[in-house]
Amino acid sequence: MNLLNEALAGIQPPDDACAAQAGLRLDSLTKPRGSLGRLEEIVRRYAAIRRDPEARMNAGAICVFVADHGVAHEGVSAYPQAVTVEMLRNIAAGGAAISVLARRFGYPLLIADVGVATDTSGDPIPGVLYRRIAPGTRNFTTEKAMSVAQTEAALEAGLNVAREAIASGATLLGIGEMGIANSTSAAALFSALTGLPPATIAGRGAGVDDAGLRRKVEVIERALALHRTSLADPLAALAALGGFEIAAMAGACLGGAALRVPVVVDGFIATAAAVVAGRLNPGLFAHLFFGHRSSEGGHALVLERLGVQPIVDLEMRLGEGSGAALAMNVIESALALFREMATFASAGVSEKLE
Amino acid sequence: MNLLNEALAGIQPPDDACAAQAGLRLDSLTKPRGSLGRLEEIVRRYAAIRRDPEARMNAGAICVFVADHGVAHEGVSAYPQAVTVEMLRNIAAGGAAISVLARRFGYPLLIADVGVATDTSGDPIPGVLYRRIAPGTRNFTTEKAMSVAQTEAALEAGLNVAREAIASGATLLGIGEMGIANSTSAAALFSALTGLPPATIAGRGAGVDDAGLRRKVEVIERALALHRTSLADPLAALAALGGFEIAAMAGACLGGAALRVPVVVDGFIATAAAVVAGRLNPGLFAHLFFGHRSSEGGHALVLERLGVQPIVDLEMRLGEGSGAALAMNVIESALALFREMATFASAGVSEKLE
Repeated sequence: MNLLNEALAGIQPPDDACAAQAGLRLDSLTKPRGSLGRLEEIVRRYAAIRRDPEARMNAGAICVFVADHGVAHEGVSAYPQAVTVEMLRNIAAGGAAISVLARRFGYPLLIADVGVATDTSGDPIPGVLYRRIAPGTRNFTTEKAMSVAQTEAALEAGLNVAREAIASGATLLGIGEMGIANSTSAAALFSALTGLPPATIAGRGAGVDDAGLRRKVEVIERALALHRTSLADPLAALAALGGFEIAAMAGACLGGAALRVPVVVDGFIATAAAVVAGRLNPGLFAHLFFGHRSSEGGHALVLERLGVQPIVDLEMRLGEGSGAALAMNVIESALALFREMATFASAGVSEKLE
Repeated sequence: MNLLNEALAGIQPPDDACAAQAGLRLDSLTKPRGSLGRLEEIVRRYAAIRRDPEARMNAGAICVFVADHGVAHEGVSAYPQAVTVEMLRNIAAGGAAISVLARRFGYPLLIADVGVATDTSGDPIPGVLYRRIAPGTRNFTTEKAMSVAQTEAALEAGLNVAREAIASGATLLGIGEMGIANSTSAAALFSALTGLPPATIAGRGAGVDDAGLRRKVEVIERALALHRTSLADPLAALAALGGFEIAAMAGACLGGAALRVPVVVDGFIATAAAVVAGRLNPGLFAHLFFGHRSSEGGHALVLERLGVQPIVDLEMRLGEGSGAALAMNVIESALALFREMATFASAGVSEKLE
């Protein structure tokens, strides 16, 4: 917990003066004031988080956390649990959606096994960081998904992966995940932390049918009843209902923020991690970008409740960090415009009439 | 008119069979079905327009058309008319927003002067294609902005620039513009063609104040009254209220579509061009992507009326093709996923449970 407590204590508010300085430069560029819309807000926020009025971008990196869930045995997913390890291999081999996007945008991909049911560490998959907490969580309909010690270990695993990415030069982080049944875990956490009913929050995940969705909602309702005394405390709620990859993403959010590196949150599952982390330190949110509005379950509703506007809205619901990657590319475009556009003075363009 | 009539006659409907074949491949990729959301629709549409089930992408290109407007003399813009030629230089020199984005995404930028008030062709600006129709349009509050011959020449100029980009290898085109006062011209065209009142459609353009906006609306109302007998016919309406760059963008849309190359429409002004071109051949729209939702005036309302959903929504209102460029990059990401993702079979990932 030392690392985690250090990160929690190390998160400073973004520097508004840097945002203001970046804003002055934005207004000097050859465009009508404010005409780059939300791209300008992105630049100002990036400058403030980085405490750098020049909003310098070095590199992006994407951290993908992979783990299994005991609740998969309740028949809440459209795919068998074996898909988690199969997709771990596929992500590392370059064939998954996030592999393609990370390659296309030039983002190193840090792929961490934080608890896949099948242990491949004996014959390690090239490109996978083994930070395994356990071979999957326990089934949270009958017991807590994770012990408190496991939860803390998973948080610190995520935090460390984020620190590694930053040590390698990343000034912008994206987080994503893969884990069969993790949309059930995320929906349970959203319900526990926001009070929104499971039927409003839960979605079809990778594609369950109507019966599967009813089962999923019922599973979450049972879990919320079982763990009701643990749900007021965010760490206890995370232990009861979460997963290793969700805890790891929460840790990565905190780790990025503590080092003044903005973190781009992916969709439904990653947002659940961000919400948990934000309960541990409400100052966190000022360091996050919400990458996209997922079409999974109540994600749009949750974003609305959080009062945040995602960067991309393409009705995606894939996870892996795919929405975060697209959003990071938009952020990089905003920073390129900020850095490379001419000013009215340098280009000899007339200013606005008074 | 030969070229234009050829293009109008050459537009074939996209091939649904190619879309269906691309859809089969999309369903074989290692992701839940449909989980890439609108990216999947983009791939299917691209395949259908290109009549290529493999949806091969060669290169993108952006065509920016620059011209001046007689109506600028009515005080409808926040910037002096000289900004048009100054921005022409800035775009060509690499300092404008579209220069930065085109460079970043690797898109050749075809910059065409189709009628800037200041004639620089005697001492040509490197990188500018001189396809000048006249040194600016006439003031449409007192006469038609363009003669029919000028309108046709501008349409063909745009069509030819699109053909040149395609001959150089472009399989995806973006269109954009620059021209002081052209949001007044575009708003007038929207009103003429959709019946929506000028006060609903007109926006602040590059940033007029309340008095400027009232003047702009009043100017459009006067022009609509003056030219009311010309507004039923799209070419006549374009001649009366349009501009050289608007006509050129309309021509570029038709030129791309006739050669089976999808055209990505930028914001407010470019959409006016697309609407005019769509009146000349309603089959055109099946070949267009609407790049972004601009925050200028009634653009959101117009897109809604057209029943189209833009790819990007970042409250931009800059023009130049900046929204189109960001959208083209999303389209390219969709095509990269389609081309490079592994299939369930190739990656050994288990399929959905039945």
